[in-house]
Amino acid sequence: MNELDLVARIRKMAGSASGHRARGVALGIGHDCAVFRPRAGQDLLLKTDQLIEGVHFPSDMPAPAVGERALARALSDIAAMGGEPRCCLIALTIPQSKSGKWAEDFFKGLLRLAKRSQTVLAGGDLARGDKVYCAVMVCGVVARGKGGRGPDARVKALRRDGARPGDMLYVSGRLGKPHPGEPGCRPIRPRLELGRSLLGRATACMDLSDGLALDLHRLCLESGVAAEVDRVPVEPGASTERALHGGEDYELLFTLPAGQKAPRGVTRIGTIVSGEAGGVLFQGRKLVPKGWNHFAPQS
Amino acid sequence: MNELDLVARIRKMAGSASGHRARGVALGIGHDCAVFRPRAGQDLLLKTDQLIEGVHFPSDMPAPAVGERALARALSDIAAMGGEPRCCLIALTIPQSKSGKWAEDFFKGLLRLAKRSQTVLAGGDLARGDKVYCAVMVCGVVARGKGGRGPDARVKALRRDGARPGDMLYVSGRLGKPHPGEPGCRPIRPRLELGRSLLGRATACMDLSDGLALDLHRLCLESGVAAEVDRVPVEPGASTERALHGGEDYELLFTLPAGQKAPRGVTRIGTIVSGEAGGVLFQGRKLVPKGWNHFAPQS
Repeated sequence: MNELDLVARIRKMAGSASGHRARGVALGIGHDCAVFRPRAGQDLLLKTDQLIEGVHFPSDMPAPAVGERALARALSDIAAMGGEPRCCLIALTIPQSKSGKWAEDFFKGLLRLAKRSQTVLAGGDLARGDKVYCAVMVCGVVARGKGGRGPDARVKALRRDGARPGDMLYVSGRLGKPHPGEPGCRPIRPRLELGRSLLGRATACMDLSDGLALDLHRLCLESGVAAEVDRVPVEPGASTERALHGGEDYELLFTLPAGQKAPRGVTRIGTIVSGEAGGVLFQGRKLVPKGWNHFAPQS
Repeated sequence: MNELDLVARIRKMAGSASGHRARGVALGIGHDCAVFRPRAGQDLLLKTDQLIEGVHFPSDMPAPAVGERALARALSDIAAMGGEPRCCLIALTIPQSKSGKWAEDFFKGLLRLAKRSQTVLAGGDLARGDKVYCAVMVCGVVARGKGGRGPDARVKALRRDGARPGDMLYVSGRLGKPHPGEPGCRPIRPRLELGRSLLGRATACMDLSDGLALDLHRLCLESGVAAEVDRVPVEPGASTERALHGGEDYELLFTLPAGQKAPRGVTRIGTIVSGEAGGVLFQGRKLVPKGWNHFAPQS
């Protein structure tokens, strides 16, 4: 398939220009850049995330599922800051072994989630390479204004730096989900509604993409605190080890001040305590932040 | 190198938070998303671009040059719309064969250009894979307001859709530059000043990344016009064929109404004419838009 033809098809699938303008996208696919027109009183959230064949998904994963997952991972970060997605740009490399049809199906899957989450596909870049490589960039919005504690309280968006000793620690959903290619793997459901409901309430929040152990370590580091975890909600069929270090959960990890009522359907897993910044105890024992560390030596 | 250590080093290299805030970046590296605080009266430009080992640069290209080139390509698109860069996010995959030092050097090169162009490194994503793969996302700003002709005149940013018969066609610099790995290859100098000077003057503009023949075809398609090219400014040592189809120029291609004075240092190469949309003649003969078409069958 010719690149110009493929771009023309994707552009058609991406929807109407008037629908795009309603989401702030003044100019979409077809120019050197997309043009986004921000509204007064809003801050923008910018995120980029990668999905790589053989690293994050197996080669035989159906193209629509790959496209959906690529976008879902980035939307999960918008959720973690309490934002609403507005538009995305997709950098996609495709090997010669995949057809133009594969690329079209990738965008079909991606656009299904884009429409459900009202995220406009506003641009991107296509290339040929050895493997499927996708980098998604998402732009979201969040109300402007001060919020929470810490040096970054000039933004209302949920952050990692406001957890304080005495805060209660929560996660959404269950942890230790099957990875792509494993039996029972399901599409990611970015926790956009939950994230928005936590704006102005949670003292810290992030999404779980590298395993609870590593991500909680990061949250505690940024907040300058430690944490004690008593229990975790484990995905049926998963081990506790997997729930702690598995790394494909895309749930929200957040803290609320003591006494603050939690949203429905989340689980309290522990408490923020004072101590060495980044230190985490699980049932009284030190939890090593190993998780999904791409830069650790691979064994 | 551990990912957390590498991120900490990059964060340190990226500069001070107060300097970032002056460019609109309210929150940078260290959270799930970067937070950008737009000013009233500005539209945002969003762009993503890929740089892949073995496709866009040879494996032995020095890391700082790879980093600089990755950012420069995306800045060239901001220039093409008449914008000013504000921040970037970098998705980088590194093979085991490259050290943590390689990654650090990549960011050193990238940050040299980032500082020169006042582009804040506001976030990103690191992963391990088979090859170096980099996707750069840039956010720029441009004055809000109506501009030029065509259905997209609700934005002032330079676009591809406003060229009309009678307009004069220009390029900056010389075409047919050596590609990475070839003798004489030089860093890309994104034409940011030229792009800004064309705001409100050029009727259409884009950057040359896939060769004059293919890119002019695209510009004419978007504007619904044809073009006649009389001459091209050829890079010393390059053939005319290379100047027409080479594809690593990162110069600006733009149109001005007849009689409008051109900026210094650009070359008039032809004229916009009526005719089949996208049709281009070079010295009276049809110019085939072959250029750097990643999706054409590779011969």
